[in-house]
Amino acid sequence: MTSQSVPLDHSGPLVLSSAECLERFGRAPLGRIAFVANGDPIFLPVNHKLDGDEVVFRTNAGSKLLAADTDSSVAFEVDGFDAELRSGWSVVVRGAASTVQDSQEVARLHTLGVMPWAQASVRTHWVRIRPYGITGRQVVHPH
Amino acid sequence: MTSQSVPLDHSGPLVLSSAECLERFGRAPLGRIAFVANGDPIFLPVNHKLDGDEVVFRTNAGSKLLAADTDSSVAFEVDGFDAELRSGWSVVVRGAASTVQDSQEVARLHTLGVMPWAQASVRTHWVRIRPYGITGRQVVHPH
Repeated sequence: MTSQSVPLDHSGPLVLSSAECLERFGRAPLGRIAFVANGDPIFLPVNHKLDGDEVVFRTNAGSKLLAADTDSSVAFEVDGFDAELRSGWSVVVRGAASTVQDSQEVARLHTLGVMPWAQASVRTHWVRIRPYGITGRQVVHPH
Repeated sequence: MTSQSVPLDHSGPLVLSSAECLERFGRAPLGRIAFVANGDPIFLPVNHKLDGDEVVFRTNAGSKLLAADTDSSVAFEVDGFDAELRSGWSVVVRGAASTVQDSQEVARLHTLGVMPWAQASVRTHWVRIRPYGITGRQVVHPH
């Protein structure tokens, strides 16, 4: 974890700047998407990349996410923590998820190096999250 | 990560047994809850404990979770991963969240040792998740 770029305050979580949030988002190899299907929240860990300020990842044809509404509201989180120090950070992008249909755009996304750890060969569909906003917090304790 | 207790299969994610899921859930110091507020998914990292097969954690009076419906459907996830090995696991409890009102029950929960990393002093409300089910998957790659 890097904490050099944020002010230290031991009374509670610190708000991370947008730039810091994006930097951590881009660096994390894995995030977690939450979305709503039939009124219930669904959780999926996925390997993602930033494409500009948008989050992109691959999924399979049977994904519940694809079955959800187009432009469905989702939250996507990355975090890091150190249990021994009882410290950590969390960054959440909230936005609208949609599948990428344009074949040229799909070809371009394939060059970004998004490589799912699991079942890469069947994760042929691309999902893009257009962000409403990005927020991040960090908890640091005194030594 | 422990992988001794699950069969190895390198073609895709492995399903973890319920016992393995509970064991990992109980061992994780931090999880992430997703719930729905005004139709949108909300994400919060929290420090939790297992109380039998129920998940309990502390939150503050202004929490969006408390503002959600009683017995609202939530998903709670713990995971662990190794980016270098491109391997990881994820366990999700889905269930109904409600606040704990009974003062004797609150007193008992305080003995479980749930200690939020951030703002512990204001996290005076307890939330309990009664699980519908617990599922877990693991991705392991050959060396």
